[in-house]
Amino acid sequence: MKTRRVTVPAMEAVMGRTMPVLDHGFVRVVDYMGDDGAVAQAARVSYGRGTKTVSDDRGLIRYLMRHAHTTPFEMCELKLHVKLPIFVARQWIRHRTASVNEISGRYSILDREFYLPQHDVIGTQDEKNRQGRGAALSASKASKYLGILSRDALKAYDHYERFLGIKGDKTTEKAVARELARIVLPLNYYTQWYWKTDLHNLLHFLALRLDSRAQFEIREYAKVIAGAVKRWVPLCWEAFVDYRLQALKLSRAEAAVVKSVLEGRDPRKAALGLSNRERAELKESMGIDVPSDG
Amino acid sequence: MKTRRVTVPAMEAVMGRTMPVLDHGFVRVVDYMGDDGAVAQAARVSYGRGTKTVSDDRGLIRYLMRHAHTTPFEMCELKLHVKLPIFVARQWIRHRTASVNEISGRYSILDREFYLPQHDVIGTQDEKNRQGRGAALSASKASKYLGILSRDALKAYDHYERFLGIKGDKTTEKAVARELARIVLPLNYYTQWYWKTDLHNLLHFLALRLDSRAQFEIREYAKVIAGAVKRWVPLCWEAFVDYRLQALKLSRAEAAVVKSVLEGRDPRKAALGLSNRERAELKESMGIDVPSDG
Amino acid sequence: MKTRRVTVPAMEAVMGRTMPVLDHGFVRVVDYMGDDGAVAQAARVSYGRGTKTVSDDRGLIRYLMRHAHTTPFEMCELKLHVKLPIFVARQWIRHRTASVNEISGRYSILDREFYLPQHDVIGTQDEKNRQGRGAALSASKASKYLGILSRDALKAYDHYERFLGIKGDKTTEKAVARELARIVLPLNYYTQWYWKTDLHNLLHFLALRLDSRAQFEIREYAKVIAGAVKRWVPLCWEAFVDYRLQALKLSRAEAAVVKSVLEGRDPRKAALGLSNRERAELKESMGIDVPSDG
Amino acid sequence: MKTRRVTVPAMEAVMGRTMPVLDHGFVRVVDYMGDDGAVAQAARVSYGRGTKTVSDDRGLIRYLMRHAHTTPFEMCELKLHVKLPIFVARQWIRHRTASVNEISGRYSILDREFYLPQHDVIGTQDEKNRQGRGAALSASKASKYLGILSRDALKAYDHYERFLGIKGDKTTEKAVARELARIVLPLNYYTQWYWKTDLHNLLHFLALRLDSRAQFEIREYAKVIAGAVKRWVPLCWEAFVDYRLQALKLSRAEAAVVKSVLEGRDPRKAALGLSNRERAELKESMGIDVPSDG
Repeated sequence: MKTRRVTVPAMEAVMGRTMPVLDHGFVRVVDYMGDDGAVAQAARVSYGRGTKTVSDDRGLIRYLMRHAHTTPFEMCELKLHVKLPIFVARQWIRHRTASVNEISGRYSILDREFYLPQHDVIGTQDEKNRQGRGAALSASKASKYLGILSRDALKAYDHYERFLGIKGDKTTEKAVARELARIVLPLNYYTQWYWKTDLHNLLHFLALRLDSRAQFEIREYAKVIAGAVKRWVPLCWEAFVDYRLQALKLSRAEAAVVKSVLEGRDPRKAALGLSNRERAELKESMGIDVPSDG
Repeated sequence: MKTRRVTVPAMEAVMGRTMPVLDHGFVRVVDYMGDDGAVAQAARVSYGRGTKTVSDDRGLIRYLMRHAHTTPFEMCELKLHVKLPIFVARQWIRHRTASVNEISGRYSILDREFYLPQHDVIGTQDEKNRQGRGAALSASKASKYLGILSRDALKAYDHYERFLGIKGDKTTEKAVARELARIVLPLNYYTQWYWKTDLHNLLHFLALRLDSRAQFEIREYAKVIAGAVKRWVPLCWEAFVDYRLQALKLSRAEAAVVKSVLEGRDPRKAALGLSNRERAELKESMGIDVPSDG
Repeated sequence: MKTRRVTVPAMEAVMGRTMPVLDHGFVRVVDYMGDDGAVAQAARVSYGRGTKTVSDDRGLIRYLMRHAHTTPFEMCELKLHVKLPIFVARQWIRHRTASVNEISGRYSILDREFYLPQHDVIGTQDEKNRQGRGAALSASKASKYLGILSRDALKAYDHYERFLGIKGDKTTEKAVARELARIVLPLNYYTQWYWKTDLHNLLHFLALRLDSRAQFEIREYAKVIAGAVKRWVPLCWEAFVDYRLQALKLSRAEAAVVKSVLEGRDPRKAALGLSNRERAELKESMGIDVPSDG
Repeated sequence: MKTRRVTVPAMEAVMGRTMPVLDHGFVRVVDYMGDDGAVAQAARVSYGRGTKTVSDDRGLIRYLMRHAHTTPFEMCELKLHVKLPIFVARQWIRHRTASVNEISGRYSILDREFYLPQHDVIGTQDEKNRQGRGAALSASKASKYLGILSRDALKAYDHYERFLGIKGDKTTEKAVARELARIVLPLNYYTQWYWKTDLHNLLHFLALRLDSRAQFEIREYAKVIAGAVKRWVPLCWEAFVDYRLQALKLSRAEAAVVKSVLEGRDPRKAALGLSNRERAELKESMGIDVPSDG
């Protein structure tokens, strides 16, 4: 089709293509609106003659990202078709500034597809990080886990079909309502939705979901979407990496400690306000080791 | 505690009280802000001297509701603690203009509590209404359904505990991470959250979820919340019932048919634009029967 | 440019074209995403096999509109460039679910352009409707009004330029900061913005701003945007007109009165709950005249 | 009144008190919901047993703020009555996640009150910072500015009253509609609104509006509100100051430079990616001076 709208050839190349995620999931770009230039254009409306000094789009986009002038990034939209396990959908839906049309288990019969993690990503409970995974589970334990998970999921689907009165390709009459039948299915079953959001909120989603503290499974989706964003708005993506994803945030006390060290002063006084966690993080990020006896 | 804030004695009386819903769920009022007077007060800021003619709060509130002047209703807030099955939570969360803190299966170990519907609300699939339940299932089929649902839920929890390495009160080491263990649980397990929203969005939630097309289970929650709203803001509730819940919306074509009948004209011409569904609904709501060969 | 995105030829034809509104304002379509088919497509994801019975897009879209299934309409986006008086912008901005980049009087120097109403739309204050205009002002009074408005606006701009130290094309040094200079300008000065919203929220905007109770000036913008929407998504627009714009909402009491009349019963009992305003509106919309002595 | 809701004595003490801002403006606390404990309580619902290790509210709140776990902060609400110049209102309203009821110039007659800045805050246009004020204007220029501003505002109000047909305390008939009369008023006139938002969004508002780049006038409001927040939720406020307001954000390149210096390496290579602006800011914040010849 011909259009007078701004068009991104690199994005057109992947439109409609199903990008696989996990064992049965996918992300597919359904539609997009805007490009790097659309972000700069919206900013130029706001700052008018004030943006003359910033001659090029890249400089302007980096300025906007650096100073958290977020509204121009709202001027681009991305619409995705996503297939994802229900427990991932439950995390994802918490991002409220998005439009969603999810397949409904009240209207439709869900497919017999469920998520089984790969052996090597089945982690044990992390001892320190209460929300995360630690080392990989032993091979035999992982096999047992997968065996149970798989058998339970299959049996649940058998029961689901039985409730629905499905035999082969037919449905017997007087079966349980779909909305009640589906409640037997476990959280690793796949669902699908159309999901649409603007670039600002998409980047916020990615900042949270690419983070190492996000659950592995949703991170896999975030990575695939990040790849699409990089194609779509490469200048915004570069600025996002430099000023947000790989930026370092120092608390008031951390900044004071770093400054002390830089100026050759004893950092222990400045370090008094640090929690143990901050102490550990400062050592990791900046290599500064402040004795905890202050 | 003493306060200078507006206070609603009828609401204070139920604060903190656990109002049961379904077999293990509940709704509990944690906090509220504002009352009927606060809605009127905010409207008076907007309309200033213009509201002198509306002498009392009731009249003003009815005027606001009638004309969909919704912002003054946003000036009241309600915070609830809710325990609800996951499949209900998945419908509920679609109301985006609310604040939510849900128990996290990544941090916490979920309780062994799941939803089993009462015998008499286990419906068959409705033939016409694709999203709903029809007549009750036969007693024997309902028993079978409940038996399977119950056994599956119990076994899933056994597996959940096994994954987590729980034996009695202890946890064995090197167990599966909580975030992976929980995915074996089915959708009828209970979750909990704090949920806070403003009165305007709450009434919108109730309008949708008290509707006969909403799933029975979420309707049960809506009914209990409606009871609390009635205590809290009785004038808003009355106006909501009159102008929204029990209001009748006639499409352009339906209104033309009604008018024809009222004016003694043949309604068949006006009825040409009606769909079969509209024809049926018009008969039900107004008793007007227009032959479809119209 | 070539694209694989859904494209609407009728919309392409007006893209970038400046559609004039009021004396100096305009609306210009900058970009759009989706079409009628995109709404139906998103609904089909949700309702899956349940939508098989609704064979065509038109029927499905009408069903969605009729039952206020609003989320599929969020799947389309429209981005506009608008030039509008500040007092109109202040009403417009109250629609919060939109993205906005407005020209900033802190960064830029505003243009010498202000709104003067046409003679025939300068109304007197309506006696009953406290928010509206009644009959046209007398010609001589209207001329006086316009003369004062115009002189004040021109003088304000002279002062604005003087504060900014502008002489001819040059700026003298040490002038008042732009952010302080602009506060001398009156509310009829024009501003500009990029405004982007989804179709659901756009239709809500139009429902409120096409209404006869909306101020004339913002209604003029709504009319022009409505024209663009009609080109863009003709099936959604038709459904919107039938089920929302020209729909008739009867309150609980009004519906009871109408039913009484239809069934040949005395409506006076049902009419007891009607306010005088409702009585008047019922007479106007349905021709039913219930004596107020009930 | 007695209540079972959480109550903050320090906040009760200022409720209803008019806190002056600028020459005629004010901020008044109308209502509040929640306290520091309510934030911690909501977080404990989410993280359940995971929060046992964080024994006290202060530690938990600091953890939440540090890791941008923002939803528990949404569980508190603040409702303010604010009187503010229109140009300030136009900046303020851009914060969309809030509820607003503003006095309407269509319904009401606005008061004869306008903003005149104090002599010492009338700045010249900053040469570098295109959005800000530089040095103070000379006394004579400031006097001229104020004289013009004041005369124009008074004359505009005279015209406003004349349009409205106000003579003394009476109104002549057949005057210009209020909605058209008010457009003669300049942007320094005062308006009023009720404004309600949650603590998370309020802190975001304060982060942006306490910033030195915000316009002086809105900063004055932010300061007064900050004082109220400090009384209301002192632990949240402390965490906000430490982890947001006085935190330091280093971009990827800036962090690399700081690390180089800390580790005794030549920072010039890491500094290649820095813009001139970043170079300047790094010198100011950390005292690191990297020669721009890289």
